[in-house]
Amino acid sequence: MRVLGVDPGLTRCGIGVVDGGRGRTVTCVGVGVARTPADQELSARLLGVAEAVDEWLDTHRPEVVAIERVFSQHNVRTVMGTAQVSGIVALAAARRGLPVAFHTPSEVKAAISGSGRADKRQVTTMVTKILGLAEAPKPADAADALALAVCHLWRAPMAGRLAEAEAKAAALARNHKARLKDARQAAAQRAARTGGVQR
Amino acid sequence: MRVLGVDPGLTRCGIGVVDGGRGRTVTCVGVGVARTPADQELSARLLGVAEAVDEWLDTHRPEVVAIERVFSQHNVRTVMGTAQVSGIVALAAARRGLPVAFHTPSEVKAAISGSGRADKRQVTTMVTKILGLAEAPKPADAADALALAVCHLWRAPMAGRLAEAEAKAAALARNHKARLKDARQAAAQRAARTGGVQR
Repeated sequence: MRVLGVDPGLTRCGIGVVDGGRGRTVTCVGVGVARTPADQELSARLLGVAEAVDEWLDTHRPEVVAIERVFSQHNVRTVMGTAQVSGIVALAAARRGLPVAFHTPSEVKAAISGSGRADKRQVTTMVTKILGLAEAPKPADAADALALAVCHLWRAPMAGRLAEAEAKAAALARNHKARLKDARQAAAQRAARTGGVQR
Repeated sequence: MRVLGVDPGLTRCGIGVVDGGRGRTVTCVGVGVARTPADQELSARLLGVAEAVDEWLDTHRPEVVAIERVFSQHNVRTVMGTAQVSGIVALAAARRGLPVAFHTPSEVKAAISGSGRADKRQVTTMVTKILGLAEAPKPADAADALALAVCHLWRAPMAGRLAEAEAKAAALARNHKARLKDARQAAAQRAARTGGVQR
């Protein structure tokens, strides 16, 4: 499965493509950063990022797009731009009928380094190692985009198994409820036949 | 000038088109709401809103798009969706080469009602009156979109005059700086000729 990972941002938007093979085998297909000048108008910047993302999608034809989930704890201005970019990336995927997954930074860190609190340097080091790259991807946004793609590849089978287990549990619960209802109705009918009232 | 105003939102995205005539004359061309179901996936919802906005842009061919500026004070989840929608609306405008303006809710309220603290009901009442509508636009998001468009039409000339005045002031300042520099150089040359050192 080929995943395009995106670390959304207006100034630097990290984009990385990773192929997943058997087990935990992962291969880097490409990595880069879309930059837009800070003095440009917001809509022009969004267009710049959108065009770069379109190009990556058309060139590498991923099967899934994984985007970092944005939180608003941080700097308000930055977060708004980041959210807007994440929206246009999700839209670009939806226009191509591709599924979109969002992963939080701590999910990505945990998947890559085993700790949800790893720092940027650790993530870069682990990504370089995991993908067997000759040198560390730069800037950090590029490494983060690859980390997101790897995280999705490694989490997706687990998420799939979890969804399966949850569906099975829900089916069992429905089944159990239906049996209970049947039992109650049967009891009520018996009570009606014998003229008594069963509570 | 024709303005398409957008009150961004995932559940309800208000869209209104207003024509500006001489002075403060404004006419409602169309108003509506794009809705997407809350149980749909985020990327599908963004696509739904994007397609509605594309249709409005292609049908009404506005010259400017005015979008409500999103703040992150409120509910985090809602704000992220709203920011994402505002991003895709700005992108749709940029793809058509249309300028995009952002106005804060208090700018809109002040322009429409004279008070930055007007409530939703007051804004709806004023919009209905200003545009001479037979009945109040519903829901509030639709009225807000029209209010945004009217706000842009009424503020744009003022903003234009302000930009002009600022440009003139900047040119004067540049001129003044250049003269100062010339005077300093001339003084330094005089000092060098007479062998003295002027500080």
